Amino acid sequence: MSILIRNVELNEKLTDIFIEGTLIRRIGQDLQVNADTVIDGTKKAIFPGFINAHSHAAMVLLRGFAEDLPLEPWLTEKIWPAEAQHTDETIYWGTKLACLEMIESGTTCFNDMYFRPKQTYQAISEMGLRAFISETIFDFFDDEKAEQTKRITEENLKLAQSFDSTVHYSIKPHAIYTVSENLFKWCADFANANHLTFHTHCAETRTEYENSIKDFGLSPVKYLKKLGVLSPNLSLAHVVWVDDEDIQILADYDVKVVHNPQSNLKISSGYQFKYEEMKAKGITICLGTDGAATSNNYDMVEAMKLASIMQKAWRFDPTVLSGNEILDVATINGAKTFGINAGAVKEGCLADLILINLNQTTFTPNHDTVANLIYAANGSAVDTMICNGKILMKNRIVQGKQDIIENVINISKIFKNT
Amino acid sequence: MSILIRNVELNEKLTDIFIEGTLIRRIGQDLQVNADTVIDGTKKAIFPGFINAHSHAAMVLLRGFAEDLPLEPWLTEKIWPAEAQHTDETIYWGTKLACLEMIESGTTCFNDMYFRPKQTYQAISEMGLRAFISETIFDFFDDEKAEQTKRITEENLKLAQSFDSTVHYSIKPHAIYTVSENLFKWCADFANANHLTFHTHCAETRTEYENSIKDFGLSPVKYLKKLGVLSPNLSLAHVVWVDDEDIQILADYDVKVVHNPQSNLKISSGYQFKYEEMKAKGITICLGTDGAATSNNYDMVEAMKLASIMQKAWRFDPTVLSGNEILDVATINGAKTFGINAGAVKEGCLADLILINLNQTTFTPNHDTVANLIYAANGSAVDTMICNGKILMKNRIVQGKQDIIENVINISKIFKNT
Repeated sequence: MSILIRNVELNEKLTDIFIEGTLIRRIGQDLQVNADTVIDGTKKAIFPGFINAHSHAAMVLLRGFAEDLPLEPWLTEKIWPAEAQHTDETIYWGTKLACLEMIESGTTCFNDMYFRPKQTYQAISEMGLRAFISETIFDFFDDEKAEQTKRITEENLKLAQSFDSTVHYSIKPHAIYTVSENLFKWCADFANANHLTFHTHCAETRTEYENSIKDFGLSPVKYLKKLGVLSPNLSLAHVVWVDDEDIQILADYDVKVVHNPQSNLKISSGYQFKYEEMKAKGITICLGTDGAATSNNYDMVEAMKLASIMQKAWRFDPTVLSGNEILDVATINGAKTFGINAGAVKEGCLADLILINLNQTTFTPNHDTVANLIYAANGSAVDTMICNGKILMKNRIVQGKQDIIENVINISKIFKNT
Repeated sequence: MSILIRNVELNEKLTDIFIEGTLIRRIGQDLQVNADTVIDGTKKAIFPGFINAHSHAAMVLLRGFAEDLPLEPWLTEKIWPAEAQHTDETIYWGTKLACLEMIESGTTCFNDMYFRPKQTYQAISEMGLRAFISETIFDFFDDEKAEQTKRITEENLKLAQSFDSTVHYSIKPHAIYTVSENLFKWCADFANANHLTFHTHCAETRTEYENSIKDFGLSPVKYLKKLGVLSPNLSLAHVVWVDDEDIQILADYDVKVVHNPQSNLKISSGYQFKYEEMKAKGITICLGTDGAATSNNYDMVEAMKLASIMQKAWRFDPTVLSGNEILDVATINGAKTFGINAGAVKEGCLADLILINLNQTTFTPNHDTVANLIYAANGSAVDTMICNGKILMKNRIVQGKQDIIENVINISKIFKNT
């Protein structure tokens, strides 16, 4: 299987791009190659697909389900009771819908933290995206629950041996306030022993920070350090409530950080994400949308704009986190975090690519393609998406879309009674 | 000319809507009427068109022209020299493009502050939108320039007598730091005498606030009070740097306030817009995008989401500025500010309406149409737009779009050499 993209804009110059199998093989003008499929790149620009480094895909079924509420009743009276209703079928269709939305808005790879990895895998595999999936790990400080969770995780890893090469199992304890010291350490050891990526929520809210000080006598980051679980394969979602010492610790252990601007603003977790301080210490920072119950979408273009302009806003400095820089955060930094050879339009890289339609209002005039993508456009600017060398969307058409929408509408009725 | 919209969702119920001439005549189920045009509203929701209460339409030609720069060189080395290149033709095509973008993202009426009202009017009239236009007034504290500006304004008002009923002339001194006391007072008197809306930038940046204290011994709002220019027909754009006394003054004089979240964040003007304090005093707050050199688009859906989630973020309170509330800010409050009988889907109101396509990913599932519109979707969710009883977009197709894009690409080349 091969694809030739003719005359597409790459870094403001026109070129051809030849994809063979799963990889970008050649980039250059007037390539003399034969391909199974030829795409006309006229009036289109090519970018690496976005890497959504923190999401809860099937949570999309609770999009708009409970809005503008205080955090506590929102979680305990609305979200958790609704999530208790999930079945194999809701997870399958919810994940399909999330994948559809990611394809339509340019995400080729995502890091998912939710439930029922078998159905999650099935949905992602059918949709063709790259993903790091999991069964979220909790024990609520109950020893019996901890042992049960360990057994489930071991079984899941066996199941994952049958996964397509694009879907990886990963280890995701929920957070320090829902996972015991014993289980957290086990997770780190298990991830390291099996060469799996390792991910958790950390320092998301002021309440989490204050409770960590109260319960453990340490900030969330320092508590994780004390547990001995910090390592380069660990990525932390949110990381809003950190001081200079915490940031130095994350840098020392090469821990990766995932910024989630939409969710952090909407549920009032914290808006002063310390991008500049982390960058100064060399920390790899990537970008996520979080789940659609809080974000309320999976649009990484929106997340890029929001991350950039919020950083400019709270620092009173319009020069920080430029368009080019946030584009790296949303692509190559995600690839580095998850150890995949993607996030760049380069020969030898995985063919995880998007074509942006420049023949539209938000790209007119086009003094600066990257600036127009980040600041003027949104995910709907994506015209064509290729993942692992396969075309998943062309001219904004994704096969099977209507079927997914109708199944989700039908299956989401169960949440109405919650 | 009449339009019948069948089976459309209004406030979560299905109804028919009959438009005759420029007005919404009847709303109800199974209306027994004949219409020149029938629109199938199946899987669509109807909303009032958005009212963009502060914009610089033709500035869209400088979208992405100078990004991520400090404010001072951005303005003096990039934007002002580029704006000096404007011609009748650039203003005409720039305004056409801005109107196209507003139509595509659901704005039926906008308040414009730019140059060359004749060309601006021509473009808007051809595109069919409702607008309040102007020639921005400056004198840079030069008496001769002040007199010249007054004469131009008087001539513009004569010209405006030939405008279509949808385009209104309005009086827009730029700001207190570019307009003398004498000219500002003349503007207020001229606006009042001619029953025109009156608009200026106010308290946008910390620098403006500090200079106002230094130069006038008063905050920007208190200085405007001292000038005697505060009145119910005045709307102020930005209003970020205000204290409790300033807010009380604005309330006392029934001055309207326009919030511009995208621009305020991106150029680091200030992010703590005091929505709750102004609302508590009964101030009418409406919403704008500002010009596309700072926003970088005219997407009022994006502006609604940003206004809402930023208010939740900096107050650490997810309950403030709900989806329903920001929708009012972007519609009925704008109508109130400009004294037009629009901003609502009600019998007798102007037929300035949009149909949202619910059969798409970001509206699936649809637990809450308003929440999905504000928090999950963006301007691309708009399927059909009606302004003043005329269909300007149907199934996302706007007549003449490609011609506008090509003319703008061509004419924008003059800015490259700036």
